[in-house]
Amino acid sequence: MKGITFLNPGDPVDQYLLIKQMTKGVTTAGKPFLTLIFQDRSGDIEAKLWDAGDEEERKYQPQTIVKVAGDIHNYRGKNQLRLKQIRPASAQDNVKMGDFLETAPLSVEEMSEELTQYIFEMKNPVIQRITRHLLKKYQKPFMEFPAATKNHHEFVSGLAYHVVSMLRMAKFLVEQYPSLNKDLLYAGIILHDMGKVKELSAAVSATYTIEGNLLGHISIMVNEIAEAAKELEIDSEEVLLLQHMILSHHGKAEWGSPKPPMLMEAEMLHYIDNIDAKMIMMDRVISRTNSGEYTERVFALENRSFYRPHMYDQDKS
Amino acid sequence: MKGITFLNPGDPVDQYLLIKQMTKGVTTAGKPFLTLIFQDRSGDIEAKLWDAGDEEERKYQPQTIVKVAGDIHNYRGKNQLRLKQIRPASAQDNVKMGDFLETAPLSVEEMSEELTQYIFEMKNPVIQRITRHLLKKYQKPFMEFPAATKNHHEFVSGLAYHVVSMLRMAKFLVEQYPSLNKDLLYAGIILHDMGKVKELSAAVSATYTIEGNLLGHISIMVNEIAEAAKELEIDSEEVLLLQHMILSHHGKAEWGSPKPPMLMEAEMLHYIDNIDAKMIMMDRVISRTNSGEYTERVFALENRSFYRPHMYDQDKS
Amino acid sequence: MKGITFLNPGDPVDQYLLIKQMTKGVTTAGKPFLTLIFQDRSGDIEAKLWDAGDEEERKYQPQTIVKVAGDIHNYRGKNQLRLKQIRPASAQDNVKMGDFLETAPLSVEEMSEELTQYIFEMKNPVIQRITRHLLKKYQKPFMEFPAATKNHHEFVSGLAYHVVSMLRMAKFLVEQYPSLNKDLLYAGIILHDMGKVKELSAAVSATYTIEGNLLGHISIMVNEIAEAAKELEIDSEEVLLLQHMILSHHGKAEWGSPKPPMLMEAEMLHYIDNIDAKMIMMDRVISRTNSGEYTERVFALENRSFYRPHMYDQDKS
Amino acid sequence: MKGITFLNPGDPVDQYLLIKQMTKGVTTAGKPFLTLIFQDRSGDIEAKLWDAGDEEERKYQPQTIVKVAGDIHNYRGKNQLRLKQIRPASAQDNVKMGDFLETAPLSVEEMSEELTQYIFEMKNPVIQRITRHLLKKYQKPFMEFPAATKNHHEFVSGLAYHVVSMLRMAKFLVEQYPSLNKDLLYAGIILHDMGKVKELSAAVSATYTIEGNLLGHISIMVNEIAEAAKELEIDSEEVLLLQHMILSHHGKAEWGSPKPPMLMEAEMLHYIDNIDAKMIMMDRVISRTNSGEYTERVFALENRSFYRPHMYDQDKS
Amino acid sequence: MKGITFLNPGDPVDQYLLIKQMTKGVTTAGKPFLTLIFQDRSGDIEAKLWDAGDEEERKYQPQTIVKVAGDIHNYRGKNQLRLKQIRPASAQDNVKMGDFLETAPLSVEEMSEELTQYIFEMKNPVIQRITRHLLKKYQKPFMEFPAATKNHHEFVSGLAYHVVSMLRMAKFLVEQYPSLNKDLLYAGIILHDMGKVKELSAAVSATYTIEGNLLGHISIMVNEIAEAAKELEIDSEEVLLLQHMILSHHGKAEWGSPKPPMLMEAEMLHYIDNIDAKMIMMDRVISRTNSGEYTERVFALENRSFYRPHMYDQDKS
Amino acid sequence: MKGITFLNPGDPVDQYLLIKQMTKGVTTAGKPFLTLIFQDRSGDIEAKLWDAGDEEERKYQPQTIVKVAGDIHNYRGKNQLRLKQIRPASAQDNVKMGDFLETAPLSVEEMSEELTQYIFEMKNPVIQRITRHLLKKYQKPFMEFPAATKNHHEFVSGLAYHVVSMLRMAKFLVEQYPSLNKDLLYAGIILHDMGKVKELSAAVSATYTIEGNLLGHISIMVNEIAEAAKELEIDSEEVLLLQHMILSHHGKAEWGSPKPPMLMEAEMLHYIDNIDAKMIMMDRVISRTNSGEYTERVFALENRSFYRPHMYDQDKS
Repeated sequence: MKGITFLNPGDPVDQYLLIKQMTKGVTTAGKPFLTLIFQDRSGDIEAKLWDAGDEEERKYQPQTIVKVAGDIHNYRGKNQLRLKQIRPASAQDNVKMGDFLETAPLSVEEMSEELTQYIFEMKNPVIQRITRHLLKKYQKPFMEFPAATKNHHEFVSGLAYHVVSMLRMAKFLVEQYPSLNKDLLYAGIILHDMGKVKELSAAVSATYTIEGNLLGHISIMVNEIAEAAKELEIDSEEVLLLQHMILSHHGKAEWGSPKPPMLMEAEMLHYIDNIDAKMIMMDRVISRTNSGEYTERVFALENRSFYRPHMYDQDKS
Repeated sequence: MKGITFLNPGDPVDQYLLIKQMTKGVTTAGKPFLTLIFQDRSGDIEAKLWDAGDEEERKYQPQTIVKVAGDIHNYRGKNQLRLKQIRPASAQDNVKMGDFLETAPLSVEEMSEELTQYIFEMKNPVIQRITRHLLKKYQKPFMEFPAATKNHHEFVSGLAYHVVSMLRMAKFLVEQYPSLNKDLLYAGIILHDMGKVKELSAAVSATYTIEGNLLGHISIMVNEIAEAAKELEIDSEEVLLLQHMILSHHGKAEWGSPKPPMLMEAEMLHYIDNIDAKMIMMDRVISRTNSGEYTERVFALENRSFYRPHMYDQDKS
Repeated sequence: MKGITFLNPGDPVDQYLLIKQMTKGVTTAGKPFLTLIFQDRSGDIEAKLWDAGDEEERKYQPQTIVKVAGDIHNYRGKNQLRLKQIRPASAQDNVKMGDFLETAPLSVEEMSEELTQYIFEMKNPVIQRITRHLLKKYQKPFMEFPAATKNHHEFVSGLAYHVVSMLRMAKFLVEQYPSLNKDLLYAGIILHDMGKVKELSAAVSATYTIEGNLLGHISIMVNEIAEAAKELEIDSEEVLLLQHMILSHHGKAEWGSPKPPMLMEAEMLHYIDNIDAKMIMMDRVISRTNSGEYTERVFALENRSFYRPHMYDQDKS
Repeated sequence: MKGITFLNPGDPVDQYLLIKQMTKGVTTAGKPFLTLIFQDRSGDIEAKLWDAGDEEERKYQPQTIVKVAGDIHNYRGKNQLRLKQIRPASAQDNVKMGDFLETAPLSVEEMSEELTQYIFEMKNPVIQRITRHLLKKYQKPFMEFPAATKNHHEFVSGLAYHVVSMLRMAKFLVEQYPSLNKDLLYAGIILHDMGKVKELSAAVSATYTIEGNLLGHISIMVNEIAEAAKELEIDSEEVLLLQHMILSHHGKAEWGSPKPPMLMEAEMLHYIDNIDAKMIMMDRVISRTNSGEYTERVFALENRSFYRPHMYDQDKS
Repeated sequence: MKGITFLNPGDPVDQYLLIKQMTKGVTTAGKPFLTLIFQDRSGDIEAKLWDAGDEEERKYQPQTIVKVAGDIHNYRGKNQLRLKQIRPASAQDNVKMGDFLETAPLSVEEMSEELTQYIFEMKNPVIQRITRHLLKKYQKPFMEFPAATKNHHEFVSGLAYHVVSMLRMAKFLVEQYPSLNKDLLYAGIILHDMGKVKELSAAVSATYTIEGNLLGHISIMVNEIAEAAKELEIDSEEVLLLQHMILSHHGKAEWGSPKPPMLMEAEMLHYIDNIDAKMIMMDRVISRTNSGEYTERVFALENRSFYRPHMYDQDKS
Repeated sequence: MKGITFLNPGDPVDQYLLIKQMTKGVTTAGKPFLTLIFQDRSGDIEAKLWDAGDEEERKYQPQTIVKVAGDIHNYRGKNQLRLKQIRPASAQDNVKMGDFLETAPLSVEEMSEELTQYIFEMKNPVIQRITRHLLKKYQKPFMEFPAATKNHHEFVSGLAYHVVSMLRMAKFLVEQYPSLNKDLLYAGIILHDMGKVKELSAAVSATYTIEGNLLGHISIMVNEIAEAAKELEIDSEEVLLLQHMILSHHGKAEWGSPKPPMLMEAEMLHYIDNIDAKMIMMDRVISRTNSGEYTERVFALENRSFYRPHMYDQDKS
């Protein structure tokens, strides 16, 4: 079945979906309704459930799987699902939440193995030990969490997938620019966003924790490295270097890094992070756009819209 | 004897001074000379030592006390000392380095006692214990270090004096605005710049340490609070609140705070820090300016110069 | 009775309220309705009056006191009042507008007396005379006007209350930093926003006057000082100093001050003004927030939301 | 004789010049010298007077006319005058200061007459009376002062010449855009910089007065209009409009206007002021540049340098 | 008949209008409706057509002329047309699209003649030939296109009218500032926005072409000049100068000019372009505002609103 | 022999060097001297030649090879060469300019071959033909020019080397992100800076041409693509796409791109360009710095200095 985000206005809908978000509203005529955001693996879509009272509110909580029927229509330039029928799925329907969650294109096992390989290649024992220690400490959430709550890699295992993609790029770059220190760059990549496992609340439907809000994943992780070094009884410059890699990876003070990169590897970490995040965002909107047309505007890409050239499809044929 | 910075062009000089800084130069005619910065408690002044070879270079290292004779002249709007005689002080001269260092107007003992009193007033045991623990851990450098290497409170015990002034202001403000939490604000003030004892190298002639450069005093202190909490086996929200106070006290991302203040007390800490630093800077330049004239431009005050009104002196009489 | 802004969704409402604002609308189904903003001393709340034609429009004009019944519900994260009954109050209801207006926590008499005391303490006769002259000239509106139309001190006597709070802070600061000239700072505080009595139209439901829009309260007040000096036949530097205090009190050109502060007292006036305004804003949103939760975003505080720590309430018990 | 700024490196110099500025210096070898800035009507040029002691300092004060001999050489991309001989001019030399001052291309009489004509054309009696009153009050300095101390129109009668050029442009524009109110625009132009007669100290070698520094010519002039209206017993909207024209003529808060233009005529005043100032600056540097070359960088024109095309000279022939 | 934009709330409407834009919507009650933007020569107005299904959607496409009846009401501070009747105009109605399109105040013939005259006055044969060649090549769209899709000169022949107004201003300015090269300035004005004939899709209801989006009118026109020079076998500096005039006419990089003006004429072109665009915008909103009131905010004028003084109407009488 | 930039203060110098730049100066004592910048393949160093008159000026013009003796000393934190002897090299010295010019680490032949291979891999015939056509047209300067006059790749064949490095990165990235169109990205890389062959004057000691200054390499190249398409009689969307790649490759308007990237490949081109330029800059300064020390500040890297960790050298051993 075609993913919900690939349907066009007029297409009928008759399938199971997961409720991602639910908000109550009142029409200008004073009647209550629900705004529901449904999702499947392809993304999400909005719908309105009119004349929905307290009972509906209880039945259609986030994380509920529902069976819906209706069709797609266009509302202010975005697709919406016009509901004709909706009911919560029951045990007999034989569907489970995992079926509706976007997930990384690689399995947790594949990614774990690949990460292990990168750590194995490190020659500096201090960097290797700290990285291994922290990866082990946060193994489970690190492999399951998204890399963000929106914009990019906001899916199950998004964080690990982002890290693996970045490591592959790093592997190429340390060959192209041999003055880069491989160990520092690899460790920086593996740890740079690991603080998100404490900044965010969960692997699915993540929100910000109090700690996440008050400290942020950067400071959380700088602390974690200090603690790891203490537990491993390490006291050498590499600890500072790793902390600096994390601290500076947003590149500029105004983007949340209290220190700008002062190591070549820190600068490169910032570039690699940026490229992988931006490519994922551009690829997603362009893949949903027809040749000769423009994508919707993407806020996180300076609100630009992108053009999908005719040659993309001509060259394939 | 009048402080070196209060002399006017034409005034003769014949006194002991401390060498603060020495730089070698070569005249455009190819001859070596030294640029010396002398200091006494009133501040510093520049001088040139012409035809100065390797021997002079060895004799006039920073931290050396010298006997100088000469006069003051004006060079590009700033006073310089024109050297006629110079020699290193010897044991018989009976002068010591402390005589030449600007120091806080309060003694270390007075300030220690006052700090103790503020901590004693705290009611929240967690905040009190962490503050006391850290103050004890870094007692000595905390009482001796400057608050910065330049701009403001850059003198012996400048950090402690800055903190005491801020606490006094805080005491007034928690009375004026009773919704402010006194403990959080007092602790935030005491700890906000304590990381400088690791960011800077020494109480006198301080430079930035590697740790100071790569992490900065904010991240250093956030780590210290985490470590203190661990040692004291404290795990409560107050730890996060204190870390946030430190993290946000520069007020904005572009000023080095990865998170903006999200607590009323954090916002107030930022204001109090700012006022005390700026007052010290303005007071210093205005006190050296004559009525009806303008101060030199102060880079850290948006490069403004300030006017000293006639009424300052009229009203006194 | 609990103030309207302290009610929670589900709470019933049955009380008198003042209409602060009324706007006509048309539902998407083409029917007219009114959006009413009611207020009592605790603040304001929005409500919709459906199917409201010309008669309702006439009856529910701003400044009308009404008796309403209904309940509170949450709409897009903000409380609204769902109207079940509404009627204009009549003479028998025995309610008056003043009952619904937020007003300063100090009476006009208390504040007048306190202001007089500060002026009495001034030693410089020129500054004292000009300040007294202008305070007398605008006595009545100065004691009744708000300090702004929104954001902070936007209540009856808000301007005078803001000034009194600032004077108390100034009293502390001139003791802490004795190089500050007390007379200049006190006079600057008293006069800094006095131009608002001409910039705004009234003490209640204030809008901007033509003069307010075209000149602004800063230029208005600079002119007033010039005129006062002329009438008092004063021609001395103090007049320029006072004008500069007013001119520069927004701190920077981009915030509306054509000259940045060039006097120590002008810089301090800017800080004190800022602190008092910001504290009032933060205090208000935090006092309406539960422990462990975040306030709504405050536009005038860089759109931040603030966290209300658990310890606020724990420490009280 | 060719103006001093039109000479090229290698050209001999033997003429009278006026000392515009004198600064003492000390060579790196410890010898005193003077840096002299000479001027004639074409502009100014720097020179060094080596081995210059107290006597030279007394003889070569600013505003002294001297006879100099030497040649032009290029120092870091700018022409300098290499002095071979210098002596103060005496009565017999029969030269006077006016011979060396750049002055407007129109005489004071011509400009006065033209100004009178523009005021005569005004139809609104209020605007006409205020403009005439103020022009009369400051007639003498207004006709003699420069428009600025540097950058543009910084010559004798520069202010009046700037105003006359702007009025001519305004005359064209009110015909092209008839919705512009001629009286308001003319009066705004005549008064916009009149405050400079109090902001600056003198027609020649002007510096900023205390009033100029603390208030600025904009606020000075807004006050003057208020005072004029009072004296003429005028109390109508036109007074506010004129004050707003002055207040907003720098266009934006960050350029010193506490209010942005809110009248069509105020916006136009800002444009006309800008064009006339910028044209004068560009014209001056381009006129001193050879075809196919670039001018020096002009700080007040965003530090740009301008290209002088070959066709300028080809088309002439 | 009064233009649609000059009607006031309550005024009845019964006339022909052109549909400029149509958008489908769904009410919060789930019913489809159309948002229609009608226009006549005075501007445009919004209306809602309730309960509008597929048939209405087909009938009321953009560019359709309709007969409407209803009245004007005010919705959130803007006038709307409340529809009571609507039908497409038929052949018998005897109305044509041109009747509803705003058009330049000068005829195409008048403007063509005036343009020819300016080109005739040029003395530099290279500049003259290139300008004439390009004007001839794009004669038809150049005389018909708007100067923009919104903000200013967005009407039929708006581009040509903008150019003619600018040329008249230039004619005055080359006389006032004779160092300006007339040929370069005239040619720059004529060509500066000619690229819009390729950037935009049509003279009416213009949208951006792919070429317009990817390259922009500036780069398009720089290419056109290169091509023209090639075809005319011209290879001289004037070609570069003309290209630079186009390239830099937005004034700054952040406004879309990859090079800032480096020619005096390029700087002036930027000023003239700006003045003519801004005057048109201000004039339009002020002409629709009553004396003593403020215009709506104009986004393209830094979101300012303008004041219409009482004297505008007093002086007329 | 060790490169000139790798010597330390105190090291003797006795070798051939190339004069890169020569400037005349006058000491504060009035004596002429020359400031010479010498270069060898490792970089450049400054020296002063005292008492240098017209004869020296003639002998030591830029591009002259000289034999020098002297030693290295430190002047204001930078190394200088203190000259003891200098003479122009003669034919017998058997040295040639090429020996002193930094050049790309790959030969022109290697790079040509590699470029050919990338073009060979293109599948889209339009893109392939245009790229091949332009590469052929500018083959010689393209293979010899630097990529810039300073900051990065400012050496012989720097442009080609920069392009080859970027292509290698692109090859990796199109595999990692298969939605990228390889042809568009490769062609964009090859052409993006090709306009520099017209913007700069020569392969060695390059300055900006008039065309370079007035149009810039971006506009030059957009024109070249248009011309190539015309000559090859190609009229398809790919031409616009290529022009857009060039136009947008600086990423933002304020960095000189009149259009921001609107193609995924254009965004990636910007990233690749940036990474290769920055790596070259960082690598150079870090390679000249000792472990545990900081590099000089690099203006083009936001004036940062970088830290060279101890582990770089520890890990090697």
